[in-house]
Amino acid sequence: MTDEEKALIEKLRVKPGEKIRLRDRDARDKSLFADEQETRIATEALSREIDVLQDRLYAEGSRALLVVLQGTDTSGKDGTIRSVFNATGPLGVSVHAFGPPTKLELAHDFLWRVHAVCPRRGTIGIFNRSHYEDVLIGKVRKLAPKEVIEQRYEQINAFEKTLAENGTTILKFMLHISKDEQKERLQDRLDDPTKHWKFNPDDLEDREHWDDYQDAYETMLHRCSTPWAPWHIVPADRKWVRNAAIAGIVKATLADMNPQYPKVSWNPKDFSLR
Amino acid sequence: MTDEEKALIEKLRVKPGEKIRLRDRDARDKSLFADEQETRIATEALSREIDVLQDRLYAEGSRALLVVLQGTDTSGKDGTIRSVFNATGPLGVSVHAFGPPTKLELAHDFLWRVHAVCPRRGTIGIFNRSHYEDVLIGKVRKLAPKEVIEQRYEQINAFEKTLAENGTTILKFMLHISKDEQKERLQDRLDDPTKHWKFNPDDLEDREHWDDYQDAYETMLHRCSTPWAPWHIVPADRKWVRNAAIAGIVKATLADMNPQYPKVSWNPKDFSLR
Repeated sequence: MTDEEKALIEKLRVKPGEKIRLRDRDARDKSLFADEQETRIATEALSREIDVLQDRLYAEGSRALLVVLQGTDTSGKDGTIRSVFNATGPLGVSVHAFGPPTKLELAHDFLWRVHAVCPRRGTIGIFNRSHYEDVLIGKVRKLAPKEVIEQRYEQINAFEKTLAENGTTILKFMLHISKDEQKERLQDRLDDPTKHWKFNPDDLEDREHWDDYQDAYETMLHRCSTPWAPWHIVPADRKWVRNAAIAGIVKATLADMNPQYPKVSWNPKDFSLR
Repeated sequence: MTDEEKALIEKLRVKPGEKIRLRDRDARDKSLFADEQETRIATEALSREIDVLQDRLYAEGSRALLVVLQGTDTSGKDGTIRSVFNATGPLGVSVHAFGPPTKLELAHDFLWRVHAVCPRRGTIGIFNRSHYEDVLIGKVRKLAPKEVIEQRYEQINAFEKTLAENGTTILKFMLHISKDEQKERLQDRLDDPTKHWKFNPDDLEDREHWDDYQDAYETMLHRCSTPWAPWHIVPADRKWVRNAAIAGIVKATLADMNPQYPKVSWNPKDFSLR
């Protein structure tokens, strides 16, 4: 890992047990990267390196990478996926978006539907929202009793540890945007008719609970950033900063995993093609 | 649909009930497209148009597109996915590769595992191999009794009709390569150590059955190209021809579906953001 990569991770990663105050983190921060144009070009290069590394991961066939994206409405989860993972493409990456649970899903424990779609070995899986909704909206909207929510943090940590011990590297990113930036992005959806379908009047109700959500995020970051599944707080008001930070950490992590083309048990000279 | 698009489809689409002789179809054919460099650039543009159309498909949320890719080893199924669908990316496209069925899958009818992974509304699903393996390798290697294989053609047609009538547009592409071209591509996997993992000594056994496979493909093309799920025979010895043909047909089909941004039931002026 390069010194720049180490510094990037050091700056964004939440240490196990660390207390987080999101209002102390500047969502508009761009100090991580010097120049916007240069950074955009570097991000494109990173996305191509991720593609090459995923190819080796697939060839190796024994490990997976799970990327969890969480963030409030309009924080840019979809945009991140496009910028960082389109170069790898649907052949190596699968995305799962978690909406409100169905009746069937509610008839199971909250991790059931999540476990079912974890990435298979050799691939990168992306969660667009995730099991963390059950300690975010679940907590803010009181969808479960307090004691039940309380138990979930440790249940999540245990679940993620099992995944990690069975070959899945986990990276979690909280896309941190400011309330002002969200306002602009929601207004944009109201102003542009081709974006009306993205606007959900219910989102405004979530916005009313902004402070409660920030609290819930802080608790989640504090309690569920573990050595085997760390959280990163990504300044996300500027899309190019957000993309560069996530691409950098994903690439550094994959390079560190260092997947290998498997040794084959045969000698290429033994085959002559007819 | 433009005249060029109509001509492309007319040339490659198998008419319902049409008898096919693959040896009469030139896998190296490039007469569909004039200039290689120009065609490559046009294919890139098409892949971006497919992305835009998929975005509208997602917004509309009521229909899906299923793309079935079949072809012998090394025919370029993975390469097609990259060239045609990376611009859309994993957010809008999911790929399912069908390997040998598991014990659980074999305990069900052959369409069970296929139905489970059909694309959800708003998305493009790609099958990398498919239920057609059950009338290809299934037939050549005699994995089921003759009468059972025989019944499958109509079962497949009925299954695909149900999908189509419930909002899934289906396009099927047979990537047609010559035996000589396969030899070169297999040799390349033997010569390049980073490709050794892609080489499976068992593939040579399939190559021994080349003529039987071509026969099985001909029967499949003859019996399962329907108005609701047409087969296309794509000359695939030249990758740029293969990519251009498939991108052209996918784009024309999506444009013809003409997905619409949904009307919303609220007035944007009724909301003021705080």
